[in-house]
Amino acid sequence: MAQPIDEFGLIRRFFAPLAAGEAGALDLRDDAAILRPDPGCDLVLSADTIIAGVHFPEDMNAGDVARRALRVNLSDIASKGATPRGYMLALQISDAIDENWLQDFADGLAGDQEIYRLGLLGGDTTRTPGPLAISISIVGQVSENNMIQRAGARPGDDVYVTGTIGDAMLGLAVLQGRLVPPDVVTRDGLVTRFVLPQPRVAAGSRLVGLAHAAADVSDGLVADLGHICEASGLAADICLEDVPLSDAARSAVTVDQPLRLSLLAGGDDYEIVFTAPVPLRTDIASVARETGVAMTRIGEVVERDSRDRPVRVFDGSGRELDTGHGGYRHFERQVPQGT
Amino acid sequence: MAQPIDEFGLIRRFFAPLAAGEAGALDLRDDAAILRPDPGCDLVLSADTIIAGVHFPEDMNAGDVARRALRVNLSDIASKGATPRGYMLALQISDAIDENWLQDFADGLAGDQEIYRLGLLGGDTTRTPGPLAISISIVGQVSENNMIQRAGARPGDDVYVTGTIGDAMLGLAVLQGRLVPPDVVTRDGLVTRFVLPQPRVAAGSRLVGLAHAAADVSDGLVADLGHICEASGLAADICLEDVPLSDAARSAVTVDQPLRLSLLAGGDDYEIVFTAPVPLRTDIASVARETGVAMTRIGEVVERDSRDRPVRVFDGSGRELDTGHGGYRHFERQVPQGT
Repeated sequence: MAQPIDEFGLIRRFFAPLAAGEAGALDLRDDAAILRPDPGCDLVLSADTIIAGVHFPEDMNAGDVARRALRVNLSDIASKGATPRGYMLALQISDAIDENWLQDFADGLAGDQEIYRLGLLGGDTTRTPGPLAISISIVGQVSENNMIQRAGARPGDDVYVTGTIGDAMLGLAVLQGRLVPPDVVTRDGLVTRFVLPQPRVAAGSRLVGLAHAAADVSDGLVADLGHICEASGLAADICLEDVPLSDAARSAVTVDQPLRLSLLAGGDDYEIVFTAPVPLRTDIASVARETGVAMTRIGEVVERDSRDRPVRVFDGSGRELDTGHGGYRHFERQVPQGT
Repeated sequence: MAQPIDEFGLIRRFFAPLAAGEAGALDLRDDAAILRPDPGCDLVLSADTIIAGVHFPEDMNAGDVARRALRVNLSDIASKGATPRGYMLALQISDAIDENWLQDFADGLAGDQEIYRLGLLGGDTTRTPGPLAISISIVGQVSENNMIQRAGARPGDDVYVTGTIGDAMLGLAVLQGRLVPPDVVTRDGLVTRFVLPQPRVAAGSRLVGLAHAAADVSDGLVADLGHICEASGLAADICLEDVPLSDAARSAVTVDQPLRLSLLAGGDDYEIVFTAPVPLRTDIASVARETGVAMTRIGEVVERDSRDRPVRVFDGSGRELDTGHGGYRHFERQVPQGT
């Protein structure tokens, strides 16, 4: 079992190296960090907590836990068009955590700091009798007054989504034994999409000045597009067949048609759903080409009128489909205890 | 028992009102908040987590929990000379939490937002099988390049501390039944000092341009002055009899002399320990007078030389006292389960 670890020693050994590139972090030796946005920029702040046994399996390896914690936060600011600057890490460690775990956790953060170009600014470490929990507040920046909000959609806008939808939900089903993939490549691909989000940082920053509104897809495509609609006082119509699927997801829905619709409520995709004016279609296509991130047109923004749901989903023949309650709600989420 | 509470409903009902005064919080309807420091200012960031049963008694009332969570963070940035701007709230709620608790918690935050003039910027709420935990990342601002760091002390500086030291430690002893105060006024005064920190926000901001180095006293006076010394590559000598005590603490140490020294290691004072050059004594006295916060000179900064401890404590006759390991370490902290 783990020995009690001294907070100061732990900060020096595992976390100070993660702050080495951030002058304002003051080597984690001060009560606070100093941060100044670049000239002409606003800061963009978001916070997300992940808890063992609630948001990820308790036996997930430490490096993946670290990356997941950072990436769900990176996804939030990516969808706002912001470039990462740094993050505050509040780590609650349980009795099960030992020094090897902490080293792997720190290594996971270090790897992602390199990929996404941000550094640790500060935070704190506490010991908890409860489950391991990681709470991150992330800071990004974007040119002044240019953060892509949820509230900016306009009637007639195209609705786009990056990448593919539903893989993370299927990956969770694989982990829970509810879905048996045809081969190991498909299995690993789906599970990785659930375990390790790929935040659309580079693509998101290129949408500044193009997208009218955006959100990251964490609760589910229908739910998160719904958030854009609610914030904008509008609605959206999307076509089920236009929602982009991976080959693995396409195979799965071939044998289970109702599954196709439920993928839109699955959550954990960490793609960006956004709206943009029709005349910018070629610009969006250019961004997709240059960043290597698919941006698929799936519908349009319309007036809200008196409809009860902000997002309507149609099939290819124009028939409206029943999306149920329309998305994941965090408190209902369950994750498996084993992989 | 509590009903499951929907995250979105909870945000709208309890937390959105706390963000109403912050335009950049976007009514908590977006993925992120927008923040821009005032022209000519740096932002100052700090994070602190408090967990039920670890950092505060599990039956502490919700309003006090809210205030304690916010104030331990306010104390950090106050000691840096920063003025509060806003905060991110990551709330992990346990099964024991119901809507009444949340309302009292939100009311506690609202009251302190008024007092300390800051607003809620964003955050998230998660359900945990573990204990209630509140993780706050606070943002303050200070004129550019003027944050009061730990590393700025210079040899010959006076060492000061605000307010009085040791009351919170005695308040904890009262709660734990290890100390019986002479009367109810003393009892309540001490317990309140433990339960409800009084961050030195107004006084701290007035120290910008005067103090060379500062830290808040959370781990204990000797430990936190030690942090300043370590960061500055220096040492400090302080006089036990000069450390300011409340009347209640003075009474307690009259009947238990060794207690006097241990108050310097007690922690949870949330005062500011700082160093300032000798020629500024009258300026410091003016700030103390104008803010109504005592600022007591307790020693001086000296060269580190080869001594093993950064802070030496002397009695009035010049004899060096043994401060033991020199302060609280968070992981050793225990709090009582009942008041």
